Amino acid sequence: MAYRAGIVGASGYGGVELVRLLTSHPGIDVEVVAAHGQAGEPVANLFPNLAGDRHFDAIDPDELAALDVVFLATPHGPALDLGAVLHDAGTRVVDLSAAFRLSADGFGTWYHDVHPRPDLAAGDDAAATSTVYGLPELPDPVGGARDAGGATLRDRIREATLVANPGCYPTATLLGLAPLASLIEPGTIVVDAKSGTSGAGRPAKDHLHFSHVHGDLVTYGAPAHRHTGEIERWLPAGLGAITFTPHLVPMSRGLLATCYGKLVDGTSATDVQDALHSAYDHEPFVHVLASGTFPHTKALAGSNGCQLSAVVDDRTGRVTVTSAIDNLGKGAAGQAIQNANLLLGLEETTGLTAIGMYP
Amino acid sequence: MAYRAGIVGASGYGGVELVRLLTSHPGIDVEVVAAHGQAGEPVANLFPNLAGDRHFDAIDPDELAALDVVFLATPHGPALDLGAVLHDAGTRVVDLSAAFRLSADGFGTWYHDVHPRPDLAAGDDAAATSTVYGLPELPDPVGGARDAGGATLRDRIREATLVANPGCYPTATLLGLAPLASLIEPGTIVVDAKSGTSGAGRPAKDHLHFSHVHGDLVTYGAPAHRHTGEIERWLPAGLGAITFTPHLVPMSRGLLATCYGKLVDGTSATDVQDALHSAYDHEPFVHVLASGTFPHTKALAGSNGCQLSAVVDDRTGRVTVTSAIDNLGKGAAGQAIQNANLLLGLEETTGLTAIGMYP
Amino acid sequence: MAYRAGIVGASGYGGVELVRLLTSHPGIDVEVVAAHGQAGEPVANLFPNLAGDRHFDAIDPDELAALDVVFLATPHGPALDLGAVLHDAGTRVVDLSAAFRLSADGFGTWYHDVHPRPDLAAGDDAAATSTVYGLPELPDPVGGARDAGGATLRDRIREATLVANPGCYPTATLLGLAPLASLIEPGTIVVDAKSGTSGAGRPAKDHLHFSHVHGDLVTYGAPAHRHTGEIERWLPAGLGAITFTPHLVPMSRGLLATCYGKLVDGTSATDVQDALHSAYDHEPFVHVLASGTFPHTKALAGSNGCQLSAVVDDRTGRVTVTSAIDNLGKGAAGQAIQNANLLLGLEETTGLTAIGMYP
Amino acid sequence: MAYRAGIVGASGYGGVELVRLLTSHPGIDVEVVAAHGQAGEPVANLFPNLAGDRHFDAIDPDELAALDVVFLATPHGPALDLGAVLHDAGTRVVDLSAAFRLSADGFGTWYHDVHPRPDLAAGDDAAATSTVYGLPELPDPVGGARDAGGATLRDRIREATLVANPGCYPTATLLGLAPLASLIEPGTIVVDAKSGTSGAGRPAKDHLHFSHVHGDLVTYGAPAHRHTGEIERWLPAGLGAITFTPHLVPMSRGLLATCYGKLVDGTSATDVQDALHSAYDHEPFVHVLASGTFPHTKALAGSNGCQLSAVVDDRTGRVTVTSAIDNLGKGAAGQAIQNANLLLGLEETTGLTAIGMYP
Repeated sequence: MAYRAGIVGASGYGGVELVRLLTSHPGIDVEVVAAHGQAGEPVANLFPNLAGDRHFDAIDPDELAALDVVFLATPHGPALDLGAVLHDAGTRVVDLSAAFRLSADGFGTWYHDVHPRPDLAAGDDAAATSTVYGLPELPDPVGGARDAGGATLRDRIREATLVANPGCYPTATLLGLAPLASLIEPGTIVVDAKSGTSGAGRPAKDHLHFSHVHGDLVTYGAPAHRHTGEIERWLPAGLGAITFTPHLVPMSRGLLATCYGKLVDGTSATDVQDALHSAYDHEPFVHVLASGTFPHTKALAGSNGCQLSAVVDDRTGRVTVTSAIDNLGKGAAGQAIQNANLLLGLEETTGLTAIGMYP
Repeated sequence: MAYRAGIVGASGYGGVELVRLLTSHPGIDVEVVAAHGQAGEPVANLFPNLAGDRHFDAIDPDELAALDVVFLATPHGPALDLGAVLHDAGTRVVDLSAAFRLSADGFGTWYHDVHPRPDLAAGDDAAATSTVYGLPELPDPVGGARDAGGATLRDRIREATLVANPGCYPTATLLGLAPLASLIEPGTIVVDAKSGTSGAGRPAKDHLHFSHVHGDLVTYGAPAHRHTGEIERWLPAGLGAITFTPHLVPMSRGLLATCYGKLVDGTSATDVQDALHSAYDHEPFVHVLASGTFPHTKALAGSNGCQLSAVVDDRTGRVTVTSAIDNLGKGAAGQAIQNANLLLGLEETTGLTAIGMYP
Repeated sequence: MAYRAGIVGASGYGGVELVRLLTSHPGIDVEVVAAHGQAGEPVANLFPNLAGDRHFDAIDPDELAALDVVFLATPHGPALDLGAVLHDAGTRVVDLSAAFRLSADGFGTWYHDVHPRPDLAAGDDAAATSTVYGLPELPDPVGGARDAGGATLRDRIREATLVANPGCYPTATLLGLAPLASLIEPGTIVVDAKSGTSGAGRPAKDHLHFSHVHGDLVTYGAPAHRHTGEIERWLPAGLGAITFTPHLVPMSRGLLATCYGKLVDGTSATDVQDALHSAYDHEPFVHVLASGTFPHTKALAGSNGCQLSAVVDDRTGRVTVTSAIDNLGKGAAGQAIQNANLLLGLEETTGLTAIGMYP
Repeated sequence: MAYRAGIVGASGYGGVELVRLLTSHPGIDVEVVAAHGQAGEPVANLFPNLAGDRHFDAIDPDELAALDVVFLATPHGPALDLGAVLHDAGTRVVDLSAAFRLSADGFGTWYHDVHPRPDLAAGDDAAATSTVYGLPELPDPVGGARDAGGATLRDRIREATLVANPGCYPTATLLGLAPLASLIEPGTIVVDAKSGTSGAGRPAKDHLHFSHVHGDLVTYGAPAHRHTGEIERWLPAGLGAITFTPHLVPMSRGLLATCYGKLVDGTSATDVQDALHSAYDHEPFVHVLASGTFPHTKALAGSNGCQLSAVVDDRTGRVTVTSAIDNLGKGAAGQAIQNANLLLGLEETTGLTAIGMYP
């Protein structure tokens, strides 16, 4: 018998990817597909891959609270409210927005608003244990700063009620850098990140017009994109402020984070490879490629995988880690399902075994 | 317990899509992944989505003959030989090449070669019942020419040994036009077809260089592309010669056939819709969209689906049917698995429930 | 000393392409760059290729009337008004909209509105000689229906005040089919056309989101796209109603019309080639490629050229003409400048010698 | 009367862009279009934008030596020989390869070969004054290291015989960083660069197949791409080793260099803007955008322009400069023509006034 799930914000790209992926999930049935302002409209009007008779549902908190798990794929505003209501009702929630990822203070700094529920802000050291940042492979900071060994956050996710699903850029960046934390000089990290347009969301905007993006590449959001704060919060402590610069790439899906850091004196290329392999050789979704082989975003399209590799430049003493994901997969909906599996006591990989679509 | 399968020609796009799709197939295990001239090479060198330790195998006919089913994804030359060998050994074969799709005469005409085994040429009226054209939804010509009712080829596929998996263009075109055969004036059919570059295969060629295809659209192969003969062979009898013109579109996957025909006097738009719905409302993979809604190739990416719709122009008396598939899905590997399911007595949709990746 | 020009509707793609092309035109200076609702805004905010200090101007009919030539790149609504005002003031006008392309009756049929100035409707047999359809290479219908010989419209353009610049699809289609008019059976023409997204205009719309168009191909507007009426009006008389089906292709610029027609009995492939060469060998912008070589849209990007070729299929008796242009070049702004050159008595090719950007 | 030019290596992308741009150049006529192994073949076979009767010429050094200027667009191997021969004959040469950009030692380090003519290696302090690195906007190192003021290399180019035209990545990077040299801490520079596929050249290769590049993004060449050495050689002295990482972006043209550096204590955002404006406000091809506005590669397509802007992050003390060019324009053929104009005593902008093609 399958668990009963609801998706709120199903008219956005994160939401529709949840619908798509959960259709093949053997342990979770999607009972509610809700979208603000679109109740009653055929889903296929927005997403032609979902041909059929399904219509968007209205958002009914009571109905949602009765489900086994609810995915929130709305902007962080509505998620702050609905996430707290569902959490307080004891309903398991995976929130794909930024509502609960930072500390209450961090939320104020980067989102310019007062957090209504500091006890649920997963990035707050004083937050309740019922809330947690949902990057299962990340070393649990409690277990020792800047050390890749020890427990990861997946153990705390299993016990939580509300999971703050990470942002797409933080997911790729943290997976790339966390294992190397003790090998990198504080204050030297630069992250040059690139994303396809689906990361910008579904609403039609001038800068997302096909005629503008086709054949174009552009930086945006520098020097203070909001994901900077999330990355700094969840990097192992002591690495200092980072420079984070995102770019919009003419592709629909795919995200690559190229992460630079100065190595601590005496660190060898072997140390770097060992740290990565030690962190990920037993992880089902993170694959370390041989140094000199670089990850292709397209290899992950539609999957929950992350591919990464590192090169060390002896001339400059820097390590360069490139980390690729599907921003809608491991960067959003795939990871949300991974977290739901953990919340529900299912095998972590259930419904997530699809391989990236290539070519 | 799963059936044991082999893939020959796994270094091509059809082959690697078989590997990708079968990885999630609960009833078929891939035991052999063979590619001419690449035995021993890591699969991931060619296809980064298949990260891992798998290496290409050598092509060993005896080893293949011992399997439950073999997919041939080679050019038609090698498939002519290997298909016959395996068939004669009683091994079930799905051949993705053109080797066995036409009659022996038709093969001579369109492929300029003598067919070595006319008894296995599925398009030959005198061919053995152990060979069949693998478009399961196509009305069985034996059951009555130009009539959409009655049996389809799936019944004969269940009893066959060697299935000639259709070409990508014929699949989309035949699905669009076959149900309307009795409504269309002979000699009036024009098919304007468009395909992404994966239809041209993996070998690097000048005209497939990204810098040439990006921002470009071009006709090719007119007026005598080989798929013309295959379409004419499998359209219900009496429709006459067709004009078929393919185009190369700047996308990787996706195929759209825009099919034009003059309607028989007195045919109404309702007659057209009724014929399509009658043919497909019970089909799991073919979806008829409302007239005026047009299929998007992207909605089918990675799936085994076909979406089609028809409009009738009263001013000209013509029907226009647009039929979309993923050329590597329903146009190649997906359909091959559908045929293998039928051959093996599995549920026809097993392993093929993935929804198209959108956006 | 250069002629003084104004562009109205400069915030659209046709308008900005006029700005771009005229910047290099030695005989025309752009004095007014007007856009409804955007007066005062920096042009570079919308079009980063036009870095600099230029700002959009307000639309001032009196100011425009004092110029040597005005390009109208607005929707047909505003163009109906402004075109008539400027014409009546004796100011030369090239209107890129559909306002004056058809007859008054045709305008009513295809645009569902009463034409306010039938005397300026270039497609009206009774229209004033001061107005003309602006396809310079098209045989003048007065000179003999269905005959490619004789005068072209360029002679009448030289004497006109108001030029109705053709639509993008009609330009490519008419250039492809007009020379063959006497060789094609009436009632047999099918035009399958494909355009990049810039043909859909600059406003952000859901179906133009990069994430939706990337990797997608879709039919639209069938069976009664408005350009059907324009093509039928300007095809040589007697060819009957046509079926015209446009498609949206994942590229920004470029338009290909694949035109099918049944040849009159006894027509040879040589007849077809001779007709095309006779029509275009002396034309500076239309290039006939060898039969079997097909035009690439990308070869025309940014230019005013048209490339076309024809193949004859003896099996079906059909000719297939493929005709490629840049929809913003020969399909809009380039052709408008060609017409302005004729209006102003300049050499027809002035400012239009740029070669397509490839790769 | 126009100068007579030859292009060697005209079958490559740099060569064909020279042909395209020079067709509109009023002061230079292209008399020779030579390509190794392709003499006699129609140019249009490779480049459909160049429809017409032109055929590739053979490479004849004597014929070339009699011309006013020769562009070498070959690999560096042939260029080493032919460049020296023509230089010694007193013929002006613009070499687009890496043959003469570094010092003889640098060439050995990065290209693993002995330089046959150290006297012509423009990066050699002891090189003859008849050879020079062809970045006209770069401060002349003789005039004072790490200072943006004073003379630029254009003065030396005017007097030279052999110009080593810069690489595409070095052009964008040096234009972005050179004016800030005295403001950046040595040893802190990271350059994350991104290029379209035309930068990889015309020969068909697996990794350039449209089906592989479409929807993909990948790092390559790290950590020791050859352009690293060229950038380090021509950055103002004292900035130390840099980390340079290129990426392949799914677009045909366009290059973006995102350049990071730690600012010297006390440097303000205003200092940065002032340095950029001081360097470029009088330059015709380099445009400094307002801080917070980022350059679009597409805005430069087909032009010789460079757009750049800088942001300062007070949290990290880093400056991020993003610098965009068309890799075939200012990154290759456009800059080569700019250099030829200087060599020949023409106005520097002759034939280079085309605005980028957008959308």
